[in-house]
Amino acid sequence: MAPSDYNFEHFNVTFPAQYVAQVETNRPKKLNAFYEPMWMNLGAIFRKLSHDPDVRAIILTGAGDRAFTSGLDVQAASQGGALSQSDEVADGARKATQLRRHIQEFQDEISAVEKCEKPVIAVLHGISYGLAIDMTTCCDIRICARDTRFAVREVEIGLAADIGTLSRLPHANVPMSWVKEVCLTAREFTAEEALRVGFVSSVHESKATALERALELGKTLASKSPVAVQGTKEVLNFSRDHTVDDGLNYIKIWNASMLQTKDVQDAMLAGIQKRKATFSKL
Amino acid sequence: MAPSDYNFEHFNVTFPAQYVAQVETNRPKKLNAFYEPMWMNLGAIFRKLSHDPDVRAIILTGAGDRAFTSGLDVQAASQGGALSQSDEVADGARKATQLRRHIQEFQDEISAVEKCEKPVIAVLHGISYGLAIDMTTCCDIRICARDTRFAVREVEIGLAADIGTLSRLPHANVPMSWVKEVCLTAREFTAEEALRVGFVSSVHESKATALERALELGKTLASKSPVAVQGTKEVLNFSRDHTVDDGLNYIKIWNASMLQTKDVQDAMLAGIQKRKATFSKL
Amino acid sequence: MAPSDYNFEHFNVTFPAQYVAQVETNRPKKLNAFYEPMWMNLGAIFRKLSHDPDVRAIILTGAGDRAFTSGLDVQAASQGGALSQSDEVADGARKATQLRRHIQEFQDEISAVEKCEKPVIAVLHGISYGLAIDMTTCCDIRICARDTRFAVREVEIGLAADIGTLSRLPHANVPMSWVKEVCLTAREFTAEEALRVGFVSSVHESKATALERALELGKTLASKSPVAVQGTKEVLNFSRDHTVDDGLNYIKIWNASMLQTKDVQDAMLAGIQKRKATFSKL
Amino acid sequence: MAPSDYNFEHFNVTFPAQYVAQVETNRPKKLNAFYEPMWMNLGAIFRKLSHDPDVRAIILTGAGDRAFTSGLDVQAASQGGALSQSDEVADGARKATQLRRHIQEFQDEISAVEKCEKPVIAVLHGISYGLAIDMTTCCDIRICARDTRFAVREVEIGLAADIGTLSRLPHANVPMSWVKEVCLTAREFTAEEALRVGFVSSVHESKATALERALELGKTLASKSPVAVQGTKEVLNFSRDHTVDDGLNYIKIWNASMLQTKDVQDAMLAGIQKRKATFSKL
Amino acid sequence: MAPSDYNFEHFNVTFPAQYVAQVETNRPKKLNAFYEPMWMNLGAIFRKLSHDPDVRAIILTGAGDRAFTSGLDVQAASQGGALSQSDEVADGARKATQLRRHIQEFQDEISAVEKCEKPVIAVLHGISYGLAIDMTTCCDIRICARDTRFAVREVEIGLAADIGTLSRLPHANVPMSWVKEVCLTAREFTAEEALRVGFVSSVHESKATALERALELGKTLASKSPVAVQGTKEVLNFSRDHTVDDGLNYIKIWNASMLQTKDVQDAMLAGIQKRKATFSKL
Amino acid sequence: MAPSDYNFEHFNVTFPAQYVAQVETNRPKKLNAFYEPMWMNLGAIFRKLSHDPDVRAIILTGAGDRAFTSGLDVQAASQGGALSQSDEVADGARKATQLRRHIQEFQDEISAVEKCEKPVIAVLHGISYGLAIDMTTCCDIRICARDTRFAVREVEIGLAADIGTLSRLPHANVPMSWVKEVCLTAREFTAEEALRVGFVSSVHESKATALERALELGKTLASKSPVAVQGTKEVLNFSRDHTVDDGLNYIKIWNASMLQTKDVQDAMLAGIQKRKATFSKL
Repeated sequence: MAPSDYNFEHFNVTFPAQYVAQVETNRPKKLNAFYEPMWMNLGAIFRKLSHDPDVRAIILTGAGDRAFTSGLDVQAASQGGALSQSDEVADGARKATQLRRHIQEFQDEISAVEKCEKPVIAVLHGISYGLAIDMTTCCDIRICARDTRFAVREVEIGLAADIGTLSRLPHANVPMSWVKEVCLTAREFTAEEALRVGFVSSVHESKATALERALELGKTLASKSPVAVQGTKEVLNFSRDHTVDDGLNYIKIWNASMLQTKDVQDAMLAGIQKRKATFSKL
Repeated sequence: MAPSDYNFEHFNVTFPAQYVAQVETNRPKKLNAFYEPMWMNLGAIFRKLSHDPDVRAIILTGAGDRAFTSGLDVQAASQGGALSQSDEVADGARKATQLRRHIQEFQDEISAVEKCEKPVIAVLHGISYGLAIDMTTCCDIRICARDTRFAVREVEIGLAADIGTLSRLPHANVPMSWVKEVCLTAREFTAEEALRVGFVSSVHESKATALERALELGKTLASKSPVAVQGTKEVLNFSRDHTVDDGLNYIKIWNASMLQTKDVQDAMLAGIQKRKATFSKL
Repeated sequence: MAPSDYNFEHFNVTFPAQYVAQVETNRPKKLNAFYEPMWMNLGAIFRKLSHDPDVRAIILTGAGDRAFTSGLDVQAASQGGALSQSDEVADGARKATQLRRHIQEFQDEISAVEKCEKPVIAVLHGISYGLAIDMTTCCDIRICARDTRFAVREVEIGLAADIGTLSRLPHANVPMSWVKEVCLTAREFTAEEALRVGFVSSVHESKATALERALELGKTLASKSPVAVQGTKEVLNFSRDHTVDDGLNYIKIWNASMLQTKDVQDAMLAGIQKRKATFSKL
Repeated sequence: MAPSDYNFEHFNVTFPAQYVAQVETNRPKKLNAFYEPMWMNLGAIFRKLSHDPDVRAIILTGAGDRAFTSGLDVQAASQGGALSQSDEVADGARKATQLRRHIQEFQDEISAVEKCEKPVIAVLHGISYGLAIDMTTCCDIRICARDTRFAVREVEIGLAADIGTLSRLPHANVPMSWVKEVCLTAREFTAEEALRVGFVSSVHESKATALERALELGKTLASKSPVAVQGTKEVLNFSRDHTVDDGLNYIKIWNASMLQTKDVQDAMLAGIQKRKATFSKL
Repeated sequence: MAPSDYNFEHFNVTFPAQYVAQVETNRPKKLNAFYEPMWMNLGAIFRKLSHDPDVRAIILTGAGDRAFTSGLDVQAASQGGALSQSDEVADGARKATQLRRHIQEFQDEISAVEKCEKPVIAVLHGISYGLAIDMTTCCDIRICARDTRFAVREVEIGLAADIGTLSRLPHANVPMSWVKEVCLTAREFTAEEALRVGFVSSVHESKATALERALELGKTLASKSPVAVQGTKEVLNFSRDHTVDDGLNYIKIWNASMLQTKDVQDAMLAGIQKRKATFSKL
Repeated sequence: MAPSDYNFEHFNVTFPAQYVAQVETNRPKKLNAFYEPMWMNLGAIFRKLSHDPDVRAIILTGAGDRAFTSGLDVQAASQGGALSQSDEVADGARKATQLRRHIQEFQDEISAVEKCEKPVIAVLHGISYGLAIDMTTCCDIRICARDTRFAVREVEIGLAADIGTLSRLPHANVPMSWVKEVCLTAREFTAEEALRVGFVSSVHESKATALERALELGKTLASKSPVAVQGTKEVLNFSRDHTVDDGLNYIKIWNASMLQTKDVQDAMLAGIQKRKATFSKL
């Protein structure tokens, strides 16, 4: 697709290198806080990127110096949004039905990041609260700037996080005692702490250097066989949710077709010849 | 409930702060070693705390300076208890049935700590062997004193740990290579090692300072909406045992009723007004 | 069995201590690269060790100073092996069937390491690429020499790893952000990094000192009740793939027979008498 | 235990043959409609029977000619019970918490029938509405009188059945199209229909002849090895909820102890000698 | 929504009674064979119906006397559709990726029938091949005319059915030996056979009488509390895919909000007063 | 493979039609009772058939008029076999280990029938006890002669069936109330009863006519695309053990390669031309 296919009000989508897309949340004056049109945007973007043959790796970041995102725009949410306390619906069951549908839609848009067939690298910086964790637990690789201030903020506003954090953190292989502590207390944690427990893979001096590292990672991913890279993402996500036996069976069925690619020969030959391979679009 | 409802022979149950309960194993002369009446006590206490509207956070500790607990009172267990080798039952199947029922009862009492609706903070110190690990893997947050001597001790007495350690450690998100090493060798590990692998969230100078930190954590938990805190615990535990998709669905159904709470409004308003919210009992 | 039962072309099987077996991949001139007869050997060896009453702990290592293994012998694989691109089978479905059966057989041989009833300690050193990760994620405890150069190498040759790495790493309780990074980029990682994320339990100065530590660990395991040690391995592996409730039930049924062992009495008595217990063969 | 141990207000527990217990719901004037003390009784009875060595098979029936049970006593439930609409708790989340705990307790008492280690034969007759289905889907074998009028009645009173019917019917291996039809419409179905779809195993002329058949079945079960019978129940229930592979593994571990019984020899010898075997208590 | 919101090229959507919608596949000259725009239509319709407050029950039927549907329009599929054998994509892996995405989209549209929150009654008649089974295994209740000719037709055209039949039939609680026979042989089966094995709930003289019965069923469903009916559908579908314990927990959480409905009181009061209740929209 | 590759002492393997193999248990004087060498034979045969390109359908039968099989040869089993009560191993845990390994091996041989990639049609007749049920629940389609006398016989000899019956029957979609009745009582059931509950797909006048029908079925299966038939078997077995969502995903991945077959074109063309297609070997 052409870059012009990615015009969205609240996001900048750019292509800093061949096969590498960068998605930037763009509401810096509001600390990139999210309201409903934004998560609809986000879902639409990642569904497009998922099948775009010109994209092999994606970087997710936020505009401005102060925040990756401060999370849900609570003001917007309480005025007609998810957290508004309309008394029109007196019946607890009918209200529950509305809430259920609303949460489902919200989850679906955020989950589009995880379901995207291409690997996604999250670059966190500054304030990274609430939805920042929901969104980046959907990403494959998380790195951050030294100044990042993380928090699973939801209990602070009276609710259990329902857009993904509580479902994905226990499967991110970070220690459960720590997960419980930060989710139950809503306290901030630093970049160093995030690295120590494994929530991020690396910490960088600034947002700029973190983005540099992300671009380097993105280029590396984009230089490999897309058959191999996208298969690796899919199978790791599948295996996370299934037993080892089910995982072994799945990769077996997956590779029954995926090994029928010229990429294997091309990659091996390039390896022997010490040159870079090029791979067809996928 | 009144504090007087918590009179148990082998445990001191106190209330060091509003909404915070402290459960102390109290058999210090025997290094807080457990025999059958004690795990019956423990289960009874946590079942009560689970529904007690005056409790929002729980601290679990052990009396005395020397041990959180040395584990099973092996002497008691071998004299008529679980490990006694009575020859009365000649039939291997009938003996197995007795053992199965016994293990089930024992597991149920310890699992009451995990099933308790309120978050539980374990404070370990000194000797913390065997049952110490079974019990505290049921807790939400684990912290410890620097002098803690941990061990999954059971292979030392000829058996695979059957009261929870082997079932819960692989889901505590601590590295499996390390889990296997300490479970198969029964070797001791230190507070520092426990922190490094993530078994505990923090290490403190002494039992006293660890308890101080636990009380601070407990007060923090108690100050938040109990709807939010208890929902967070429930959903994290559910998610640990289910796929991400199942987890997302569960929190959706859960919050369909839980977002119908005044706590969200109260918490948001208090946030805006920079004051502490108070929440109704749950 | 007698040591002479373990004559295999590409492996040295020795018994450095009572009840301790050592399996050494022996193709050092080729950096211990694997081709089909080798994984057939490996599976056969571990199936034998699994029921050999004279074995209670196993060490897995590689001959020579340079490599634990460089992984698949790509040259062999592309000449008539798994990755050969024979054009004889024009039909994509029939080719997929051949590939599926081939992967299944390959997986089965490597999985024999995990299915072995005795605990297995992997000692990595030097180049440890590709199959090195597949094989050692089947082991219970992983330790390594400081010079180890690890890599999940498969995307480099155009494929998603299909012999176990992608199925087992997400369940090894090492951080998923890191797992994704090393699997998607195929980059090397060091012994220090492996220790930090928990992929290995300890790092040693050299291959020799790593092997010393492994032997010490092996002797420790061999000195305990084999009923307790092998039960612990089995139950930890089961629990990894099941919910906590299923795990609790399983150890209950398991111990209903396993507690009917003299080893418990023998171990407790030896503990009281401060001497070493000896246990019957299993 | 002595029959006198089974004195419960709303149930008659009798022992019509050796090792056979009969549990009769006894509130015939109210069509055996259930209110809270009754399900507490029911749970208590089956927990006792579960470990009573004098019981090897159980018959569940209802007093009087008109009804097995008409289900929940709706009047009682709406006056302070589960379905009362107290307005005291204004907060939707707090009300949900009360309801959740109430449903949990109710479910636990009914599930005690399924968890009972001994096989349970349900004998339905007359009106068999609502709770009649919840209770008897917990039983192992269902038979009925020709006059039985079944209904999954709950949608008629505005709710989805929450005490077990909707969770267990899809696993009773009766056709899902039929399950949906009777659960969604709340319509009655006859004994003949119940037999055709397999909800009951046999239909009998009257309550009396159905009870005769149940007693005959009960005596048959009681005449077999209790190790074999109770193991068969446990493993079938386990297998219902797990994959075939998990089921095969479970019976393997189960029989590793259970085949260590004299009952096998005794049963085989009695078979050869064409006489009835007697088995020790379990 | 207004009926005019349901204008679709290949489907007639009508409202034969209050709260009852009827969806009729409308391509009778081609035996209602499906090509891509049709399944896109179908998915769109059911997603609309799912949230339409004026709909409480849905009937699915096919136009004309000859066929519910003859299944996939094979001619269309082989000309640029799913089964076209374009040779443009030489690479087996890239072709597999295209096929995977295509199957996914096709499945998603058909699964929209199952995901619809309202109960769906399928009325089959005449030729009901291939996709007829895929679509109606997504429905809650299946009834048919006596002349129906069913077949799981896919192996006849060289493929394993991939739009739902093979995934859902094993969970429809119809005997697996029969499922295997009809799926492996592709043979026709009659209405009588479908009734005997439980694939349909009832057989009617003609399409017209089957539709009458469906309308009667639809009216019955529409007359009950939508909270109760839709909850029952959701929980039965959930339970089909989960263990009994998970199912019990789910209905507990579900009803924690759903019992907070006025419908329970209204339904009970109407029952006592022997009149029909009316319920608010959902 | 050549027919001569299938010489086994206790089985006759013949090829009554192209691509159709027939496996006949051959120990008629002992009512085809099984002892250890026989299940080793059985496993070996089905592992061969699984990959034999000349086989597309398999019939399983028993020699002689009197019995499909009377089950385990109890006399052989009690003399040194699985049920022998050797007192050499005093320790309950060590004995359990031997039993566990023995059951595992026995299960593996019988499960080879289910794991065979080709569909298997069981033809039962006469006495069909115990192992007859274990073996035929591994088959895809079960048909029988009118004189068949079925029984899940194991409780009669003091044990819970451990070779597959209890694990597979709950997933054969035959009513659980009936499954429990026949498994708990060990009573015989007739061909008519087996048909009514769906355990068999059809009943035939005699063993001869049942075999005729099996051959007809076998020829039908052999005439279809082996890609389609074997995929259908695999996906139905997978779906039995997984959720609908997992099943949909699996067939999607499976068909991503399997639709890349010439068989689809060949089958469609043959259909249009009203002639029989021929398909390459698989």
